[in-house]
Amino acid sequence: MPTDADHATADVVLETLASTRAIRRYTDDPVSEHDLARIMFAATRAPSGSNGQPFRFLVLRDDPTARRARRVLGDGVRSQWDAKRSADGYERGSGAHRGSRKARTAATMQDFVDRFESIPVIVLVGAVRHRPGPDETIGASVYPACQNLLLAARALGYGGVMMMWHRVVEQELRELFSIPDDVFLAAMITLGVPAGRHGPVRRRPVDEFVFEGGWGTAADWLHEPPGTEHTAPFRRS
Amino acid sequence: MPTDADHATADVVLETLASTRAIRRYTDDPVSEHDLARIMFAATRAPSGSNGQPFRFLVLRDDPTARRARRVLGDGVRSQWDAKRSADGYERGSGAHRGSRKARTAATMQDFVDRFESIPVIVLVGAVRHRPGPDETIGASVYPACQNLLLAARALGYGGVMMMWHRVVEQELRELFSIPDDVFLAAMITLGVPAGRHGPVRRRPVDEFVFEGGWGTAADWLHEPPGTEHTAPFRRS
Repeated sequence: MPTDADHATADVVLETLASTRAIRRYTDDPVSEHDLARIMFAATRAPSGSNGQPFRFLVLRDDPTARRARRVLGDGVRSQWDAKRSADGYERGSGAHRGSRKARTAATMQDFVDRFESIPVIVLVGAVRHRPGPDETIGASVYPACQNLLLAARALGYGGVMMMWHRVVEQELRELFSIPDDVFLAAMITLGVPAGRHGPVRRRPVDEFVFEGGWGTAADWLHEPPGTEHTAPFRRS
Repeated sequence: MPTDADHATADVVLETLASTRAIRRYTDDPVSEHDLARIMFAATRAPSGSNGQPFRFLVLRDDPTARRARRVLGDGVRSQWDAKRSADGYERGSGAHRGSRKARTAATMQDFVDRFESIPVIVLVGAVRHRPGPDETIGASVYPACQNLLLAARALGYGGVMMMWHRVVEQELRELFSIPDDVFLAAMITLGVPAGRHGPVRRRPVDEFVFEGGWGTAADWLHEPPGTEHTAPFRRS
């Protein structure tokens, strides 16, 4: 029989899961080593296939190699954002109007890549392969750990975002750190103290994702908390 | 400035992250629809690449199609466990001794697959591709949602495990539910009320996973909570 304390615990966890937004704007405050240790410990307690624990985390702060890696990554993310801004038409349509969601997103991204080298903590995440790739399920043994990392950061007052933009400079990173060939470089995660606030994430309504009885048939017992905010329908122009 | 309430919240979340074990033994108690709705909502609030939200969840409980899928999956997991038990030598070495960790793991797995059709909830997890596969980073847009699902279940008193053993019967499942070709079937997750207790997960020491300054160089600020339990070193015989 659940107690009131159990209910309070559940509410705290569920609220955290529903309010861990991608955070790309940080203050200049550092991430303390004590907190960083708690965050990384939580990441490494994640599940993985056959409990094989293939996840590895390289933390980039301020040592000489980290500074070189930051410059390599900074150039990489700026080139990626330049390409995405054009390809996704961030200057067209509503993007041309200051204050539109699209224009604000573009401004945040531009600021993020411009200030990339000064982000307090950057984590490169790898997964040791136990068989040759490509293996689309390898992510099941590393991305839960990335989510634990982001949730622990959120709980301790930090925020971050997981990205794949390390891939454009992957070979340089591999050489810089002598990363073994059998390591899949799965993600890059940035961390810092949010300059803005957390607040609820915005997603599509839950009944667009959860089915019962057939693929695409929304389960009839779904519900969302009052005030749930939604993103626009898929395939934005 | 963090408050005492913030510290309490952080402790609850970090404790949940470090105690969400794979649960394979369930009581006969159902997962209530109210709780299931909260669990699935939390899953769908997870991050994904460009907030594309490609994750989809098909919940299998007791409708006619679900019962057929359970039989298909049950046969699949039993064949997978038979193969793994032989390949990994679960009857050899310490596995031959009742009460050894290896023998207990094997007994739990045997019980799990034998009772598979009666597990309260089984969730098939898919991800809609936005480009043709194989794409090893597609997992970054679906496995964080799986982790949210398991963490929300844990917070509400349930437990579960994520597995890939649906893959051996994937074609039958695709036909049964007319799952579109552009959906990557990423995982199967089982859920129920734990027959045993949760308790801390067992992993390798954190300094085997978290590096700074070079790949393989343990960061010098790492620490683990008192009483952290560890698994045996990698490459078990």
